[in-house]
Amino acid sequence: MSTAGQVIRCKAAVAWESGKPLSIEEVEVAPPQKNEVRIKILFTSLCHTDVYFWDAKGQNPLFPRILGHEAGGIVESVGEGVTDLQPGDHVLPIFTGECKECRHCLSEESNMCDLLRINTDRGAMIHDGKSRFSINGKPIYHFLGTSTFSEYTVVHVGQVAKINPDAPLDKVCVLSCGISTGFGATVNVAKPKKGQSVAVFGLGAVGLAAAEGARVSGASRIIGVDLNPNRFEEAKKFGVTEFVNPKDHNKPVQEVIAEMTGGGVDRSVECTGSVQAMISAFECVHDGWGVAVLVGVPNKDDAFKTHPVNLLNERTLKGTFFGNYKPRSDIPAVVEKYMNKELDLDKFITHSVPFSEINKAFDYMLKGEGLRCMIRMDA
Amino acid sequence: MSTAGQVIRCKAAVAWESGKPLSIEEVEVAPPQKNEVRIKILFTSLCHTDVYFWDAKGQNPLFPRILGHEAGGIVESVGEGVTDLQPGDHVLPIFTGECKECRHCLSEESNMCDLLRINTDRGAMIHDGKSRFSINGKPIYHFLGTSTFSEYTVVHVGQVAKINPDAPLDKVCVLSCGISTGFGATVNVAKPKKGQSVAVFGLGAVGLAAAEGARVSGASRIIGVDLNPNRFEEAKKFGVTEFVNPKDHNKPVQEVIAEMTGGGVDRSVECTGSVQAMISAFECVHDGWGVAVLVGVPNKDDAFKTHPVNLLNERTLKGTFFGNYKPRSDIPAVVEKYMNKELDLDKFITHSVPFSEINKAFDYMLKGEGLRCMIRMDA
Ligand SMILES: NC(=O)c1ccc[n+]([C@@H]2O[C@H](COP(=O)([O-])OP(=O)(O)OC[C@H]3O[C@@H](n4cnc5c(N)ncnc54)[C@H](O)[C@@H]3O)[C@@H](O)[C@H]2O)c1
Ligand SMILES: NC(=O)c1ccc[n+]([C@@H]2O[C@H](COP(=O)([O-])OP(=O)(O)OC[C@H]3O[C@@H](n4cnc5c(N)ncnc54)[C@H](O)[C@@H]3O)[C@@H](O)[C@H]2O)c1
Ligand SMILES: [Zn+2]
Ligand SMILES: [Zn+2]
Ligand SMILES: [Zn+2]
Ligand SMILES: [Zn+2]
Repeated sequence: MSTAGQVIRCKAAVAWESGKPLSIEEVEVAPPQKNEVRIKILFTSLCHTDVYFWDAKGQNPLFPRILGHEAGGIVESVGEGVTDLQPGDHVLPIFTGECKECRHCLSEESNMCDLLRINTDRGAMIHDGKSRFSINGKPIYHFLGTSTFSEYTVVHVGQVAKINPDAPLDKVCVLSCGISTGFGATVNVAKPKKGQSVAVFGLGAVGLAAAEGARVSGASRIIGVDLNPNRFEEAKKFGVTEFVNPKDHNKPVQEVIAEMTGGGVDRSVECTGSVQAMISAFECVHDGWGVAVLVGVPNKDDAFKTHPVNLLNERTLKGTFFGNYKPRSDIPAVVEKYMNKELDLDKFITHSVPFSEINKAFDYMLKGEGLRCMIRMDA
Repeated sequence: MSTAGQVIRCKAAVAWESGKPLSIEEVEVAPPQKNEVRIKILFTSLCHTDVYFWDAKGQNPLFPRILGHEAGGIVESVGEGVTDLQPGDHVLPIFTGECKECRHCLSEESNMCDLLRINTDRGAMIHDGKSRFSINGKPIYHFLGTSTFSEYTVVHVGQVAKINPDAPLDKVCVLSCGISTGFGATVNVAKPKKGQSVAVFGLGAVGLAAAEGARVSGASRIIGVDLNPNRFEEAKKFGVTEFVNPKDHNKPVQEVIAEMTGGGVDRSVECTGSVQAMISAFECVHDGWGVAVLVGVPNKDDAFKTHPVNLLNERTLKGTFFGNYKPRSDIPAVVEKYMNKELDLDKFITHSVPFSEINKAFDYMLKGEGLRCMIRMDA
């Protein structure tokens, strides 16, 4: 019996107020409207961005809200105008979209779609400005257009990557956000050549994915930089060959790295969000050819500051968003990299909980334990 | 009768003290030593850098000195170990060199040779730390390893580009410095695609050469930015299609340009040396794909400052030195571009004086009149 066109009642983890445990509720999920897709979520994982908007410090708080943006699922039904997806397709919802029509989508270089670029303030669907979630008729806000902490969710078709149905969703689900961001920052933007040296600032999930990108690219040295020495043990699994803790030195870490490498690394990728790390990541690349890539999300009032001569000496500074991947066009091929064993995702998944224990995933992250906690919706 | 191996007596314009007119003197020019070449200079032109070191404000003054670094000439004789040049070759001496052996020379990307990178403090030859110029045995300092304000000069072979002997030296001589710098900044570094928009900050010789690079690349719009409206008339000859004077607006020029272009230009090239212009040049490029290239030489204490989000939104910031050209490997091909009429140099040469009137060239530059003054050695 098809559920298409009908309201679905299912379980969702609702954030009622900032910083309070999510509560599993029965919600109504309206059918997908024009250019929308309703997806049955099978697996979802927790990312810092969920925690950040759950904590809702220094933001416009939007509650009640269904968080979640790293997930894998199966299309349940599609709305009017959706032609390239159909029920049964395996998909990853993505927090940023690709309309395929705007200047950014038509550009080979950009993935910052004018229509569907990440919008953390929006709590409703673009089509009609309304929510598809409700409890007893009272709307619940969406999050990033994905709201994957729900057995069913409605997503704009431009935010849905159709992937190989053989791919295990409990693994490739992490490609929805941080892992693609870090991996893409290295392989799409920093682009180290075989044998080059790469410094990675910040050894969280994003930084370790950047290191994985360096390993896959054949980097000869992968220097991990973190203020937290606990990160170093885990990082070895990701091909990080050397470690620098800025706290262990009484000179700027960029000078330490320059000394270790005879003038600087060939590439660096910053995955911390600290503006000081951004500056160090830039200044630690070799003159003549060094490329530094910024990934971390800075504070509102941060200023990146350097002497212009560091640029004139032929260093390149770039930033990236979602690893420069276009979600619909490019992510399916990243899933194939996993299928071909070029890219290892399993080591990012350090914990797993049933949906009913989703708050444990928050605890792990708040304690800084592990990298990704897989949340199993069917359990 | 060959002069090889002998001291040559000839005329040179000597700067005896900072800011005082040069005086034409008879100097002795020693034979070239190991890896050196003695060149008969036929044409030389004046660049701001000569004036800057003649003025010698805020530097270690080095006098008496023979300035000059944009020139064309013919090899008179070569020193020991020089195999790829011989007497009669037409050459351009270049202020920065290419040893062909260091990491930079071996890198495809860099032109910042470890051995022969520009050194403004050095007043002697690398081989023996001595000058090849003297007056009655008293040494006269070299400048940038070129010292082209002399009928004969001695230059390290790594700073000599061998060019097509059919090329008119009174034209291609300007490729020794600023014109290659600006042109290369656009074609080698900013690399605009056909149909893209380019903003050029600073419409001196370097900026106009950058505009020429944009024209040659098929840019659809070339927006010239300068504080001096007198520059705008001349700039039209260089394909600049629109002008913005930051002084005419009560908001930052990057916002003015963003409005003119629906979000920003595709490429920008900064050729002013003003750090404010560097920041504007960066912030005026479009998110998603914009590339900004810095060329101007800043003050010692300047800081480049921007919000990191401007980078994360997928803008690229680069700097370049001598337009990323490797002097020996690449400049001969730029000369060919002139020969094929792809690149127009004639319009840069706005004045011409005989060597005896070299101080007039300084006057033109100090008054901001014209772009390049050609100095004819034989006259
Ligand atoms: N652009 C995107 O699409 C995107 C997606 C996901 C995450 N991010 C950003 O990437 C960054 C990293 O994310 P994560 O999930 O890996 O975070 P994380 O908190 O797990 O890891 C960050 C690491 O950086 C280290 N660190 C902090 N300051 C440092 C400094 N000055 N020097 C060296 N190390 C320092 C911390 O100790 C920590 O180990 C965050 O800023 C996040 O917002 C961006
Ligand atoms: N890297 C190299 O190899 C190299 C070689 C030659 C010159 N340069 C540098 O390139 C720069 C330009 O050289 P040039 O010979 O063309 O100089 P120039 O003085 O002839 O031209 C500079 C122009 O910039 C304009 N300007 C100054 N501040 C400005 C601002 N804030 N906004 C807009 N316009 C501004 C001036 O009005 C002037 O017209 C200089 O900094 C020079 O040192 C670098
Ligand atoms: Zn789009
Ligand atoms: Zn995320
Ligand atoms: Zn070299
Ligand atoms: Zn010059």
